[in-house]
Amino acid sequence: MGKIKRALISVYDKAGVVDLARVLKQEFGVEILSTGGTAKALQDAGIDIIQVSKYTGAPEMFEGRVKTLHPKVEGGILQRRDNPKDAAEAEKYNVPPIDLVVCNLYPFASVVADPKTTNDQALEMIDIGGPTMIRAAAKSWPYVAVVANPAHYSLIIKEMRENGGEVSQKTRANLAQEVFAVMSLYDATVTQYMAEKLGAGTKFPEMLVKMYRKVYQCRYGENWDQEAAFYRDTKADWSLADAKILQGKEVSFNNYLDIDATVQMLLDLGTKKPTTVIFKHTSPCGAAMDDTSLLESCKTAFSCDPLSAFGGIWGFNRPLTKDIAEYIFVEKKVFVEVILAPSFAPEAMKILQTKQNVRVVEFGDIFSKRNSIYKMQDIRGALGGALVQDYDSKPVVKEWKVVSKKGISEKEKEYLEFAYIVCKWAKSNSAAFVQPTKTGVYSIGIGAGQQSRVHVVKLAASKAKEFGHETKGSYMGTDSFFPFPDGLEAAADVGCVAIINPGGSNKDADVIKTADDRSVALVFCGKRVFRT
Amino acid sequence: MGKIKRALISVYDKAGVVDLARVLKQEFGVEILSTGGTAKALQDAGIDIIQVSKYTGAPEMFEGRVKTLHPKVEGGILQRRDNPKDAAEAEKYNVPPIDLVVCNLYPFASVVADPKTTNDQALEMIDIGGPTMIRAAAKSWPYVAVVANPAHYSLIIKEMRENGGEVSQKTRANLAQEVFAVMSLYDATVTQYMAEKLGAGTKFPEMLVKMYRKVYQCRYGENWDQEAAFYRDTKADWSLADAKILQGKEVSFNNYLDIDATVQMLLDLGTKKPTTVIFKHTSPCGAAMDDTSLLESCKTAFSCDPLSAFGGIWGFNRPLTKDIAEYIFVEKKVFVEVILAPSFAPEAMKILQTKQNVRVVEFGDIFSKRNSIYKMQDIRGALGGALVQDYDSKPVVKEWKVVSKKGISEKEKEYLEFAYIVCKWAKSNSAAFVQPTKTGVYSIGIGAGQQSRVHVVKLAASKAKEFGHETKGSYMGTDSFFPFPDGLEAAADVGCVAIINPGGSNKDADVIKTADDRSVALVFCGKRVFRT
Repeated sequence: MGKIKRALISVYDKAGVVDLARVLKQEFGVEILSTGGTAKALQDAGIDIIQVSKYTGAPEMFEGRVKTLHPKVEGGILQRRDNPKDAAEAEKYNVPPIDLVVCNLYPFASVVADPKTTNDQALEMIDIGGPTMIRAAAKSWPYVAVVANPAHYSLIIKEMRENGGEVSQKTRANLAQEVFAVMSLYDATVTQYMAEKLGAGTKFPEMLVKMYRKVYQCRYGENWDQEAAFYRDTKADWSLADAKILQGKEVSFNNYLDIDATVQMLLDLGTKKPTTVIFKHTSPCGAAMDDTSLLESCKTAFSCDPLSAFGGIWGFNRPLTKDIAEYIFVEKKVFVEVILAPSFAPEAMKILQTKQNVRVVEFGDIFSKRNSIYKMQDIRGALGGALVQDYDSKPVVKEWKVVSKKGISEKEKEYLEFAYIVCKWAKSNSAAFVQPTKTGVYSIGIGAGQQSRVHVVKLAASKAKEFGHETKGSYMGTDSFFPFPDGLEAAADVGCVAIINPGGSNKDADVIKTADDRSVALVFCGKRVFRT
Repeated sequence: MGKIKRALISVYDKAGVVDLARVLKQEFGVEILSTGGTAKALQDAGIDIIQVSKYTGAPEMFEGRVKTLHPKVEGGILQRRDNPKDAAEAEKYNVPPIDLVVCNLYPFASVVADPKTTNDQALEMIDIGGPTMIRAAAKSWPYVAVVANPAHYSLIIKEMRENGGEVSQKTRANLAQEVFAVMSLYDATVTQYMAEKLGAGTKFPEMLVKMYRKVYQCRYGENWDQEAAFYRDTKADWSLADAKILQGKEVSFNNYLDIDATVQMLLDLGTKKPTTVIFKHTSPCGAAMDDTSLLESCKTAFSCDPLSAFGGIWGFNRPLTKDIAEYIFVEKKVFVEVILAPSFAPEAMKILQTKQNVRVVEFGDIFSKRNSIYKMQDIRGALGGALVQDYDSKPVVKEWKVVSKKGISEKEKEYLEFAYIVCKWAKSNSAAFVQPTKTGVYSIGIGAGQQSRVHVVKLAASKAKEFGHETKGSYMGTDSFFPFPDGLEAAADVGCVAIINPGGSNKDADVIKTADDRSVALVFCGKRVFRT
């Protein structure tokens, strides 16, 4: 392109626009076309502008719905400067070139985010003229610079000063690309708004547009030969991307999967008691709650399966204190992949800093944000498409329906609920045995990822025994119903006293009878907690 | 809205447009404005139109870059019919209302999909006038009907005939919503094109726009209290949504997860031998290849873990024949959730029809489409965002690096590769023992979802023993390296003769020494196959 001689400036967000216009006018003698509020702001600042309506000879109409939509404006932007026929037509029809378009759009997203906004107000906020101008300018980027974001004004000024009034080709291309991204997101937002307000089946619209902004290019994906990146959903209030990485090696794709599961399990366990969870391959290998201290919960969680806890992801629901860091890294010398907590005490950080490979992730106060986090939906790729669903964020126990003769106490409900949350977060089919302590409760055997119910109960029990835990007097949760009584038998065989599962099998009657025969309390809680 | 009196028709895709215009003109006396090629097509068909350039008094400029971008056109669309000030201005400036906009866009996506397309040609394909018209009409949906897709012409005609020349409010709202969805996708495509051609980081762009079309609203999600839907990616050449559901109960969310895994495992195993795989909870619980027949592979796959195979998802890589259906449903009387094959013989269908609950899914020739299927990327939700990665579609064996003293034969490579594919598809950590038969190879013990390597090897071995399989002389794959020799020991203890894994542990030297001590052949294949 050559020097910028004529600019069209029409912005909703007026930040910085006066300063930009002043530089354009005073340093470079650019002719400025403008409309409405922008024109007024520039004139008030003593900057000479030409009203677009005067420039085109066409009036503004319909309360500003039609301002810049005119061949003299759009043609000024779209004409190809290096095409002799275009140049001749521009001359013949008096359509001088416009070299710079500065425009940002009506803030549709923030206006509709206000629940008081009416449908008419929302409709009025759909910008038509602005998108036309910036899309035209972006198409015409070989000749035109387009600035749809006030953040770029300083770059434009800098380049014009350095290049004698020109904007570089690279910058023009980048600005153009941003315009199409901005437009794509803008229209996606309108689509979803209309789907929610006007259509049926609002939660799962016919056309689903998801827009993500890249946060982080991973070194590799799930395996070494897969490329991958982590994206933030532009509609999310809170994202894993908002967690602060205080130190450590780069967070891998698989770390993110584990962090996601760990944070969600902590959300389920809540803040009522100091709590520790340890994940490995997106299933917990240890979890504990304790009335007395976070350290106590850490010790009992670790004791569940100390073998798997090596190289695990450790999560806490309280600020991480020095004693925990000492226990893990000094006393037990455990190799940890990721350590997660709402915050980290400076004395704890001192110890963590001696282990520079450990990723330290501070997630802040997620607990107060639970509702807004779970407003979003979960998505999973399926060949050529995706499965989209609500997060499984409802309380894990829908009802305390005790179906056995043997009843349960309030305290035992706590143990069973804890067991059920542990097995929810272990991959399906899953089962978790837990054991009370004097001051809390902890997992003693967690079975995950099995293809049959009886196997996973046996697996969980065998792990409890392997690590020397007392299974007598234990409590168990398993993530779906027993298709046969054999799974319950396997739990009773190791001394389990109460079991929670959703119920719903054809053989429920047999299962209940077996529970009674074996003097096991059995709760059908009405909610399945599969997780695959 | 009232009757449609004036329509603007300007389409790139001319399909059906003449018929639509004829109805508008002849049945409803609509005044038709048109431009360029559309105008010519309508006139050639003997339909009276008014050229937009004549209507506005402004010439077409710059080889069609500026045709409809005019206040008389855009104002005709945007004016609010129920606003007296707008009506007065429309009168004063002679801007009559336009009630119907029929327009589809330059086919940017398909043009740039052709590798021969130059940057200039691509730029020319970015539509400016069309988007402005349809966005204006979509904003103005309370007064205007907008049709951006020829598929909807028949609906417009039907409604006009039923409602005396009007289009219903509901339809106008739906059509408007579609316009913003179409525009969002269009500009996302342009963004990605520009990122690829002009910018860096092509595969994982800074802004990622995914657009999905709903295929199916699930009865519920992963659990009973989660709502869910299955969406097709609008960019996919092939999708699970393209598989035909020939009969059966409705396909559930979890069925789709299993179908996705089953189809992908079949893609990995390919078509060289008749093959059966059986999934449960997205991990295989049986798999077999056989030189002689599909039935033989079905029998040996089923024998691996007949307990888990109940309620499983059965997949085949050959047309499903009568003998298979007989074996499963008549002889063995297995309860099957889903049965998947490229196609189904009519005699097989006769048997399947006696089991109306069984979901029968015909996936067609996916094998020839492998490359195009895996051009897409996998996506996984993570709180407030998503992890996006290439599919793990490369050959599972990167290199045949035999690190033990004991070597392996070509035949043994087949067994090891088979074992490695089985363990790839079992959730991590995983291990799979396989055993040759006279005519093929089949899985005898599959361990999945474990939090430590040694546990999963023991689990896989214990399952082989539980179902009476001979583990002596077996082959094993496990999805990542041995952190210690104990996992290899556990395999050697049950008589395994050769093991495949990626290698890469700090303790590789110890592991290799143990392999030699135990006379086990050990292959480090250089590729990890985690799947979480």
